[in-house]
Amino acid sequence: MWRACPKRKKLRIRLTSWPIVSRVSNHPTDAHLHIGNSDAHAPGMPVVAVIGDGQLARMMHTEAIELGQSVRLLAGARDASAAQVAADVVLGDYLDLDALRRVAAGTSVVTFDHEHVPTEHLRQLVAEGVNVQPGPEALVNAQDKLLMRQRLAEIGAPVPEFSDIASREDALEFWDSVGGEVCLKARRGGYDGKGVWFPGSRTELIKLVDALLIQHVPLLAERKMPLVRELSAMVARTPSGAVATWPVVQSVQRDGICVEAIAPAPECVFADAASDLARRIAEALEVTGVMAVELFETVDGIWVNELAMRPHNTGHWTQDGCVTSQFEQHLRAVLDRPLGATRCLGTWTVMANVLGGEEDPALPMTERVRKVWERFPDAKVHLYGKGWRPGRKIGHVNICSDEPIDELRRRAELAAHFLVHAVWADGHLARKD
Amino acid sequence: MWRACPKRKKLRIRLTSWPIVSRVSNHPTDAHLHIGNSDAHAPGMPVVAVIGDGQLARMMHTEAIELGQSVRLLAGARDASAAQVAADVVLGDYLDLDALRRVAAGTSVVTFDHEHVPTEHLRQLVAEGVNVQPGPEALVNAQDKLLMRQRLAEIGAPVPEFSDIASREDALEFWDSVGGEVCLKARRGGYDGKGVWFPGSRTELIKLVDALLIQHVPLLAERKMPLVRELSAMVARTPSGAVATWPVVQSVQRDGICVEAIAPAPECVFADAASDLARRIAEALEVTGVMAVELFETVDGIWVNELAMRPHNTGHWTQDGCVTSQFEQHLRAVLDRPLGATRCLGTWTVMANVLGGEEDPALPMTERVRKVWERFPDAKVHLYGKGWRPGRKIGHVNICSDEPIDELRRRAELAAHFLVHAVWADGHLARKD
Repeated sequence: MWRACPKRKKLRIRLTSWPIVSRVSNHPTDAHLHIGNSDAHAPGMPVVAVIGDGQLARMMHTEAIELGQSVRLLAGARDASAAQVAADVVLGDYLDLDALRRVAAGTSVVTFDHEHVPTEHLRQLVAEGVNVQPGPEALVNAQDKLLMRQRLAEIGAPVPEFSDIASREDALEFWDSVGGEVCLKARRGGYDGKGVWFPGSRTELIKLVDALLIQHVPLLAERKMPLVRELSAMVARTPSGAVATWPVVQSVQRDGICVEAIAPAPECVFADAASDLARRIAEALEVTGVMAVELFETVDGIWVNELAMRPHNTGHWTQDGCVTSQFEQHLRAVLDRPLGATRCLGTWTVMANVLGGEEDPALPMTERVRKVWERFPDAKVHLYGKGWRPGRKIGHVNICSDEPIDELRRRAELAAHFLVHAVWADGHLARKD
Repeated sequence: MWRACPKRKKLRIRLTSWPIVSRVSNHPTDAHLHIGNSDAHAPGMPVVAVIGDGQLARMMHTEAIELGQSVRLLAGARDASAAQVAADVVLGDYLDLDALRRVAAGTSVVTFDHEHVPTEHLRQLVAEGVNVQPGPEALVNAQDKLLMRQRLAEIGAPVPEFSDIASREDALEFWDSVGGEVCLKARRGGYDGKGVWFPGSRTELIKLVDALLIQHVPLLAERKMPLVRELSAMVARTPSGAVATWPVVQSVQRDGICVEAIAPAPECVFADAASDLARRIAEALEVTGVMAVELFETVDGIWVNELAMRPHNTGHWTQDGCVTSQFEQHLRAVLDRPLGATRCLGTWTVMANVLGGEEDPALPMTERVRKVWERFPDAKVHLYGKGWRPGRKIGHVNICSDEPIDELRRRAELAAHFLVHAVWADGHLARKD
């Protein structure tokens, strides 16, 4: 059986949608596709070009505004999460070098809300004098999971045993070497549990490897770790070498997707080690901007799972729980400005994701928000302007508080659950129901 | 002598610019002046129309984005503070009823970032079914300083002695009745010390009253109070009648302009009374949205100075010092949603305004911000995208902290001073200077 994401029925979909293709089917080159406002930026203030139009770009935009700045987006659609609220938007495809050049022109720096821009395009931009942060040689470690593991192993960072998988034989050899505790991964493009498989038998492993290799999906395998829990250590680094870390958080996962983050991770003996590790990786790989180091915690220690070189879901709590949010910090870091304080504003902050449910409830989202606010006046609701789709990240709830962590988690989870299902998971009936 | 703002040399300017005229000289009626993005709003989420394009509208916009919403602006210029960063902007004049209709069309509610929209236009919009919050009958109390005082006196709120001034004789009679402790005010349109005069003698009073009345500036006079300090009590109220107050703050003024806000007001025996008063006024006047009650503190008690029915400079600290900022709360209130928690995130928050100095320093603003961040990693810099002009509000700095209040004030003031003058007021030299 498939022991984790994706469910068997979805495997075919995943395979046929590999490799990732941009949502923009035509490669626009016409100047009129820059639908930006020529007055969109304050004179003399830096403009950050963000490749991407999702919620991470959207939340960078809000922080940029408060700093007196503004972003320019490379967006796939005018109604995308970030594009709908930004004043300066270039419509185009991030696989198209000309579109990248167009959005970069005249900006202070180019950065990203995803890792899918081809490395060769970024190298070309750098060769043309564009300031790309993080640079392609750092970013490739977040793009190619095999390169990343090789590089981390070189610098002595703890990574689970891994192996390049170029054939059925490679896979079976690795299976035997780790006693069948195998996690198979696509080298590029995976996120939120996509591109990750847990074969339950040698037969399943072979079937999976055959199906993926025939579609030219480069693969690696790693030892499946006996998790206690997952952690995330977030760090920011500037081109000048300044580094700041946030408290390490516990990342609660369901089907390979982060559903909740608890900051700081409760009773975590490895917290300092995780922060040090994140700092060491950022320095060794010359990362710039914000990086999330996703970690496995076992009884023995911590092991690197993945790297993300951008603001990350496990850092959303910083918006309401920390002096400097990851979005502001990312802007400061890629612009090579001094980094902000990362002190917590309360004992705990819990972030609960709002993921589209199997059905979209009849009660409109805006009315669901009303009910959540009615019950929890301190719940900070963040929505991304995205339409409903099962499993889609459409928002999150942060609550920062000094109350006991179990009670705080319960409230954040109830709020997020209500935003998804329009039902209180604890049977609560609001006053006016 | 003129004992306070405006300085004598500026009086002529102030008078000739009275009454307030919109910055848009042509009254546009063409549809193409709606330069908004038709995809600028998430389907099903409320759209708030904001009349105004200044920093208050800009900061409402950032909060709206995080709530999954978006604003539509009525702006005087495409490069105005809020208009430069918003996706849906109608260019037009707030004195033009058709422009107001255009921006209101299809939105959930119309609200304001200033009080200068003619009451009769708002009444007309309401008659046409537009949801205007605060409504004209509430707002008029923030527009007309005489009506406001009459109404507050009716409900028993403490106001300094006041009188309608329609002639030189009225003025002299009032002068005598208060022993020459006279503050003369324009009934409408004043803010930041504009429209407020402190005549030092009967002769000056007569000269001033004559000059203003001949220009058809309706006037009132009130007793100049023996201030200990100024306070601001902020409150939010929904159309359904829910009310929330923030901790009362001390407002430090210079030349009639708020330069600093300290939250909560230190050692304030009248804090509870001020909060209760703000709540009572909000209820009696049926205010909706956020209201600032500017107060005089004397040795005996508190007295209402002015009302502002919108987010207010003395509430900017809530962005970084409070669970719910005044901008989010204003959106929630005018949309008749449950109000957010107003708990402080630290012992103290100090807000220091960045007001354009007499000269604009050679060091670019973005480099000044760099220096401030270098010295104070917890300083939250907010800039409005506005060009420099002497005395113009171009940004503010918030710092939230548990340190002693004097030290915190010192740091916030140093930060704001550096952003204005590019010089450390305490002679500090940064590492790389």
